[in-house]
Amino acid sequence: MILHEKIATQLPSWRERYKTLAKEHADVVVAQVTVGQVVGGMRDIKSLVTDISYVDPATGIKFRGMAIPEVLKALPKPRGAKMPYVGGLYYLLMVGEVPTKAQAEEVEADWAKRADVPDYVYKMLKSMPKETHPMTLFSQAVLALQNGSVFAKKYHEGMKKDVYWEAALEDSMDLTAKLPVIAAFIYRMKYFGETKKPKYNARQDYGMNFARMMGVADVKGYAELARLYFILHSDHESGNVSAHTMHLVGSALSDPYYAFSASLNGLAGPLHGLANQECLGWLMDVHKQFGGVPSREELYKFAWDTLNSGKVIPGYGHAVLRVPDPRYMAQMNFAKARFPEDELLRLADLVFDVVPAVLKEQGKAKNPAPNVDAISGTLQYYYGVRDFDFYTVLFGVGRALGVTPNYVWARALGQPIERPKSLSTAMLEDVVAKAAA
Amino acid sequence: MILHEKIATQLPSWRERYKTLAKEHADVVVAQVTVGQVVGGMRDIKSLVTDISYVDPATGIKFRGMAIPEVLKALPKPRGAKMPYVGGLYYLLMVGEVPTKAQAEEVEADWAKRADVPDYVYKMLKSMPKETHPMTLFSQAVLALQNGSVFAKKYHEGMKKDVYWEAALEDSMDLTAKLPVIAAFIYRMKYFGETKKPKYNARQDYGMNFARMMGVADVKGYAELARLYFILHSDHESGNVSAHTMHLVGSALSDPYYAFSASLNGLAGPLHGLANQECLGWLMDVHKQFGGVPSREELYKFAWDTLNSGKVIPGYGHAVLRVPDPRYMAQMNFAKARFPEDELLRLADLVFDVVPAVLKEQGKAKNPAPNVDAISGTLQYYYGVRDFDFYTVLFGVGRALGVTPNYVWARALGQPIERPKSLSTAMLEDVVAKAAA
Repeated sequence: MILHEKIATQLPSWRERYKTLAKEHADVVVAQVTVGQVVGGMRDIKSLVTDISYVDPATGIKFRGMAIPEVLKALPKPRGAKMPYVGGLYYLLMVGEVPTKAQAEEVEADWAKRADVPDYVYKMLKSMPKETHPMTLFSQAVLALQNGSVFAKKYHEGMKKDVYWEAALEDSMDLTAKLPVIAAFIYRMKYFGETKKPKYNARQDYGMNFARMMGVADVKGYAELARLYFILHSDHESGNVSAHTMHLVGSALSDPYYAFSASLNGLAGPLHGLANQECLGWLMDVHKQFGGVPSREELYKFAWDTLNSGKVIPGYGHAVLRVPDPRYMAQMNFAKARFPEDELLRLADLVFDVVPAVLKEQGKAKNPAPNVDAISGTLQYYYGVRDFDFYTVLFGVGRALGVTPNYVWARALGQPIERPKSLSTAMLEDVVAKAAA
Repeated sequence: MILHEKIATQLPSWRERYKTLAKEHADVVVAQVTVGQVVGGMRDIKSLVTDISYVDPATGIKFRGMAIPEVLKALPKPRGAKMPYVGGLYYLLMVGEVPTKAQAEEVEADWAKRADVPDYVYKMLKSMPKETHPMTLFSQAVLALQNGSVFAKKYHEGMKKDVYWEAALEDSMDLTAKLPVIAAFIYRMKYFGETKKPKYNARQDYGMNFARMMGVADVKGYAELARLYFILHSDHESGNVSAHTMHLVGSALSDPYYAFSASLNGLAGPLHGLANQECLGWLMDVHKQFGGVPSREELYKFAWDTLNSGKVIPGYGHAVLRVPDPRYMAQMNFAKARFPEDELLRLADLVFDVVPAVLKEQGKAKNPAPNVDAISGTLQYYYGVRDFDFYTVLFGVGRALGVTPNYVWARALGQPIERPKSLSTAMLEDVVAKAAA
């Protein structure tokens, strides 16, 4: 497997660097921890290490050092497509190099061989009540696949530490290959009552397979969106809840299925993966209220009224970024190039024009620009995927592409079990009292 | 509900303390973070806050400030029993006070009302392949129950922030009530091929119900062990993988089912919940090798041979404690009082006598004393629960009793989403270079 060869080649020097840090410079101070950070949810405590991606406040997320526009430009694309192979992105995240077209296609071909989902997974999904949330079904299916974990099996047989990463890579390839199949099955089962097993076609890429299995009307258009969407949602450093959960659970040597199911459970949280549907809901409310796209002046007034009534405008503002989220811009550009006349898109564009200015006038938000969630639902809606609950599942398929390389490298570098220290409230109060004395 | 009333009364002053820390003392420095801690898995970075339990290096885990022997003495017990009501321990962890017998029984009665497991959960479990690991089944069942989450439902309906904890408490009571039923079902189904639904009996306590549903021979004896075991395994600060995962996933406002399923996935990791079966396996190997309990001299030599061949003696040594783990001692005392002549127990006791001395002579381990895992499997084995794979499920039932109070209080105090910062290897190297310059 090409990813295996590449990682194996790179590994010795990475291990050396990591070992040097751990053995020779362990006592060097990186940062301080304050009371505000502890009660603020470990807020910004410099405490995790990853080389897959980094959020640059000035340019947004960088995958292996590359900003989103660079990534979309540099990665090889299927014939006739404007959006890159998802397999190429996976190569980039795993290996840290832009793949050739042949290399990206090798990942795609490997996925096609692994995409078959065992029958019992479908049976298990069908046994659940109809009202079950799609994220619950999705996480259950991942857990069910734990049965076939190469990592768990080999660990049980006494696998040596220095090859943990190889078993992790096998599981990661299997898992990411099956996720679009499972997601599409859940979509067709839950919203259309269809329980036919989707079939992955080896002659089509990841994005096209997903679009076809989802059963949307414009398969080619949605395939492009799927490629873009999965790439954009893949990774966002290690500190967000889904990435951190993957790492934390994996650090106990739970296999990638256990870890990713846990990660999805975090993604299912309203504060994490639910934002995109809230944003779309808000846009639709505005659209309904005005019976169409309002004028600039009407929207300006509406935005102020919203803020003055103590509500927020979902999708605007970002804790870290100081610029419009490049993941927002990429989706907006995608939509404008394809369906500029769509009413919701025109509204979203108007909001992008008006709301940051209002937020700036109000002076509360550090960054008044939109984040990724402000637009992603609008694009899904356009292509006919209109069941809001399902959007987080799409996010989950994408997120797997970022957290599994992190898992593989954490095992390759021998990252130990994660074990921070907890304090009681009284202990924090003691620290405060001593500081004041 | 008594827990609800108690927490509601305490909440205002806790909220005030927490707010004071967050608003007035946010900048006070608590600790430093070093390179060694970052590459060492957040090792001992002071970064979490909990008031449910604390690991005191000198005395071991303290539940709400009380050491294990105190807890076992102070908590009320069922008539004729030596081990406390599990419901009393839950009261202690939730409320921070030792309950009266009536209060403990009120928790027990509340559990009995909530213990019924929906049919579809059994159906789902039966749909899975026979070889599925019991921890996977256990976590799947918890995920399946997400369907009935009060927290998720009320959140969806627009629940206000200051009552999040009430919905969290409802889910926590429901979840902890159902876990022994599910665990017992998985045990009977997986190892005995029985698929009859276990029935919770409102006239019996949590421990007795579990023992009866498990179908062991000595129900009364095993009920005592179950009470002890669940109490001992409930909580161990917030930094261990299962507790931390619960908190992390919950911080995105994922409901207690999502969060606890994720927590179980972490517990399933070999470095976390598997240790007890490794310890028992080692004891049984020794027993087999010597055809019984060896002499002190034989074991002394065997222990040295083991260490000299580069292997470890599982269950001995603890990263934090500087004394024998009081959870080990409590189980050892339990066993000695009940079956002092059991061969494995006698062997475990001899190991306790010999191995710490050998480890001390060797001089490598900071703490040569045994931890909780060194003995817990031996007790299960004695009562006939001999399927090693299942032991982590027992751990999971216990762990729920500690992580759910943490979840409830995290929501009550408005703890925000957990979001530490990650760095790349190159950034850490920069920090090192700058420190050297």
